[in-house]
Amino acid sequence: MEEPLNLVLFSGTDDRLQAASVLAAGAAALGRPVNVFLQYWALDAFRRDRIDADHGVSPEAGAAGADAMHALREAGQSSWADTLRAAKDLGDVDIQACSLSMDLLHLEPSDLDPLVDGVEGVTAFYGQAGAGQVLFI
Amino acid sequence: MEEPLNLVLFSGTDDRLQAASVLAAGAAALGRPVNVFLQYWALDAFRRDRIDADHGVSPEAGAAGADAMHALREAGQSSWADTLRAAKDLGDVDIQACSLSMDLLHLEPSDLDPLVDGVEGVTAFYGQAGAGQVLFI
Amino acid sequence: MEEPLNLVLFSGTDDRLQAASVLAAGAAALGRPVNVFLQYWALDAFRRDRIDADHGVSPEAGAAGADAMHALREAGQSSWADTLRAAKDLGDVDIQACSLSMDLLHLEPSDLDPLVDGVEGVTAFYGQAGAGQVLFI
Repeated sequence: MEEPLNLVLFSGTDDRLQAASVLAAGAAALGRPVNVFLQYWALDAFRRDRIDADHGVSPEAGAAGADAMHALREAGQSSWADTLRAAKDLGDVDIQACSLSMDLLHLEPSDLDPLVDGVEGVTAFYGQAGAGQVLFI
Repeated sequence: MEEPLNLVLFSGTDDRLQAASVLAAGAAALGRPVNVFLQYWALDAFRRDRIDADHGVSPEAGAAGADAMHALREAGQSSWADTLRAAKDLGDVDIQACSLSMDLLHLEPSDLDPLVDGVEGVTAFYGQAGAGQVLFI
Repeated sequence: MEEPLNLVLFSGTDDRLQAASVLAAGAAALGRPVNVFLQYWALDAFRRDRIDADHGVSPEAGAAGADAMHALREAGQSSWADTLRAAKDLGDVDIQACSLSMDLLHLEPSDLDPLVDGVEGVTAFYGQAGAGQVLFI
């Protein structure tokens, strides 16, 4: 049995979330289980009332980078949320919110988009991750 | 023998250091060895005279995110440095400063908080890390 | 056969690229294969006409951090591009551009510095990475 790919998502900007969603979808397409653990500003971006909002890009993107991302979106590129939805339909992708970050942001499970499967602590995340690769994004 | 969890800390903002300290403490609580390698702005945050200072948060946190972090701190949440101190008491957590980053920042070992166990190069870090997971934070 | 070290480079600032190049060079010096996968702003930094430009540093570096980096560079420290060139001479370092990021930035292979060995998709990257460690930088 192949080890899962594990993504700890910390950043909540659209460029990093897009990179993460592509990494998740690629692994799911290869038949690998994928575990996503949402912390801090990434968790904030998965709020039910904000997931489809504009979350900005990294400062380093600059105006040219931000324009390039907007142009792709207007040309019909999937949002990172849509890419994750497709990855969940295609494969075994589990998305959990970090319980400490839920407290930090005063969130209840009902505040989160249905893409999020549950809330767990960091030790539960390690249990799921096993010996698989872990990326902090 | 379980492979260690290895954290390369690059960022020196309080939000990322807090996330890193929770990941380290969780692994230590599970009995896993943890190796932390301090580079660049993370190393700067471990200076003896600054470790308990306010190191700011990622620009993407925005005012609301920064306020949420300050509110938790005022409500008595441990700082990341205290979380790491507790993790070292609890388990096997080794914290090393990157020798190249020591040069960059003109630091001597005596400039660092006692949380830091030593100074080493990147090849020594790889030796400690073995085949364990590595996160760049 | 030892598993490769795999670096997904996302950020295009000189401090993070410098950290990445040191991690790549250290692994290469130990005889480990290294795979580098260039996305987003990191890919932009590998453009033939910009690779030796000033790519700035993370906002958190502040003025003091930026000055420290400039001082080292003026004192003769290798640039991250030169460190990667040396690592390729020394060991087995393969650098691939992410095909989706090529589209985002409207780049052709001829736009990239010769350090870049090719263009591939994320599933090809996973194939190269095998069960080796993956860092997202």
